Amino acid sequence: MATSAAERAAVQRALALAASDGVPLGPNPRVGCVLLDAAGRTVGEGFHRGAGTAHAEVDALRRAGEAARGATAVVTLEPCDHTGRTGPCTQALLAAGVRRVVVAQRDPNPVAAGGADTLRAAGVEVELLDGELAAQARALNAAWTFAVERGRPLVTWKVATTLDGRSAAADGTSRWISGAASRRDVHRMRGLADAVVVGTGTVLADDPQLTVRDADDRPTAVQPLRVVVGLRDLPATARVLDDAAETVHLRTRDPHEVLAALRARDRQHVFLEGGAHLAAAFVRAGLVDELVVYTAPVLLGAGTPAVADLGITTIGAALRPRVTDVTVLEGGDVRTTAALEPTGAAQEREA
Amino acid sequence: MATSAAERAAVQRALALAASDGVPLGPNPRVGCVLLDAAGRTVGEGFHRGAGTAHAEVDALRRAGEAARGATAVVTLEPCDHTGRTGPCTQALLAAGVRRVVVAQRDPNPVAAGGADTLRAAGVEVELLDGELAAQARALNAAWTFAVERGRPLVTWKVATTLDGRSAAADGTSRWISGAASRRDVHRMRGLADAVVVGTGTVLADDPQLTVRDADDRPTAVQPLRVVVGLRDLPATARVLDDAAETVHLRTRDPHEVLAALRARDRQHVFLEGGAHLAAAFVRAGLVDELVVYTAPVLLGAGTPAVADLGITTIGAALRPRVTDVTVLEGGDVRTTAALEPTGAAQEREA
Repeated sequence: MATSAAERAAVQRALALAASDGVPLGPNPRVGCVLLDAAGRTVGEGFHRGAGTAHAEVDALRRAGEAARGATAVVTLEPCDHTGRTGPCTQALLAAGVRRVVVAQRDPNPVAAGGADTLRAAGVEVELLDGELAAQARALNAAWTFAVERGRPLVTWKVATTLDGRSAAADGTSRWISGAASRRDVHRMRGLADAVVVGTGTVLADDPQLTVRDADDRPTAVQPLRVVVGLRDLPATARVLDDAAETVHLRTRDPHEVLAALRARDRQHVFLEGGAHLAAAFVRAGLVDELVVYTAPVLLGAGTPAVADLGITTIGAALRPRVTDVTVLEGGDVRTTAALEPTGAAQEREA
Repeated sequence: MATSAAERAAVQRALALAASDGVPLGPNPRVGCVLLDAAGRTVGEGFHRGAGTAHAEVDALRRAGEAARGATAVVTLEPCDHTGRTGPCTQALLAAGVRRVVVAQRDPNPVAAGGADTLRAAGVEVELLDGELAAQARALNAAWTFAVERGRPLVTWKVATTLDGRSAAADGTSRWISGAASRRDVHRMRGLADAVVVGTGTVLADDPQLTVRDADDRPTAVQPLRVVVGLRDLPATARVLDDAAETVHLRTRDPHEVLAALRARDRQHVFLEGGAHLAAAFVRAGLVDELVVYTAPVLLGAGTPAVADLGITTIGAALRPRVTDVTVLEGGDVRTTAALEPTGAAQEREA
């Protein structure tokens, strides 16, 4: 049975609820739920507000009360069928007497999945969407979906470079290559991730704080995990060790080990800031999914290459990421966002 | 006395006439002329169609006939006062009985200048504009104006690069870094210049033809001069020596000598295509006015730097051209156009 116009409109509404201001990114997916009566009128709405709070379905059922009996539940993500921090949503829907469930995105998590089957077995009509609405639901939780499906965090690699591919002048100076707008944008991008990764060399050379600060240079309420990768010790005075955010030092040079450690900490989206050799190790390992390049209108003609040796010796082997966005920032820097194809991550996020 | 609305509209019309399709760029400026009667009605229009043809004023006077008597001549460029291939326009305007002349751009050429003075001395009212209309008139003949004022051609330097600043892979392969849209755009840019310059090394390595070809890959009717710079001999089979366009080999490495030789050939706008060392010599000599960078969404991590050593060792000495345009081309290449400030050329072209 196809979906009604009221149900499709309810999916859009549920997506908007899921993306409500203040709902944190990760580790849980953002989910919205709208309950419709037989006439297609909304009798309850709900959304998930982060780990430890009610799931969207439970939130909506609570608001609908008795009106949920016989209703259609429109949810952005397949209702969970397992008992985690909360009871299974399937049981809550059944107990409330919901007659039909419309699901925008199937649960990619094998542990949580099975909700649709359980509901059907109990006599509930279940409609699993595909197409544009399903794609929007996946995009809502792109990094979460990626991490669940791949078993590792999504990796976004940031590069800041001159027009001629340099990250520092011959004497090592680099302040500033990127303009103020790019630097602000990097903070925004960090804030979309839940882990910011640099190598020990970057900490020793540049002593970055790696926090997310707003336009007024104040730290934001939620900070991604700061991650320093490499074998060298860090000085106790390193800014990355201050109490502005949590920090972990992973004593390895293996990108697979880094991502496994971050997955174990429920991290879904890594923002990889460098240095060039650490980033190259991720690229060589096939562990970069998305590329964000800030190109400043500056020429040096010499100095540190912004991208280190990737093991590519001939043009046929060049990395050719698929450009998804080019934005000119105030001051003339250009931000190029592109998907590195081997992993297919970005297609899924856009699909 | 200020200009009337009819006169200002006539300047716009004269600018459009000057830029008519088919009017070649250089060596002569493009000029348009509109004749207005006392009521502000157009009684004649004309424009210059290239070296050896009538100047715009003479063209307009011929069309107006007796109606030119007592008229106002609105011209995009100060009427010439000297006898070149044609007689002085000042005398033609006086003979026709023109009463008033409105001039958008003063003639920057000391040989041709003096037209306004001659007209005033003969009792004609002359209005020299400044502001936006004057700027538009300068922009119409930006390279010509630059060359006349500076005594050398305007130099536009083209760079094609990967996102990480490489022009070829480690093994020397480079086909293709730029996408098809960039390569077509380079042909368009060549067609805006009247000389295309490369070093002998580029001819020996890449054997480019350096012609302007249209979207169907056919050579256009007018071709810029092909210029090869350097001391090495060229093989007789080099494509740049074919009969598709004129070619000159300048046996020097000195950018000043190159521009002097091209100025002597009435060239006003040089499109400098490389290689990187020749281009760096122009930059070090302060002889690059405009930069056009085609950045392809490709990563190599190693290979030939797109920009050679510019003698810059510290970030404070970096070249920071002023970005005037950023355009995303089909396929994801980004074209950045910027003015190199020391010469101030681009400000004038925009002003």
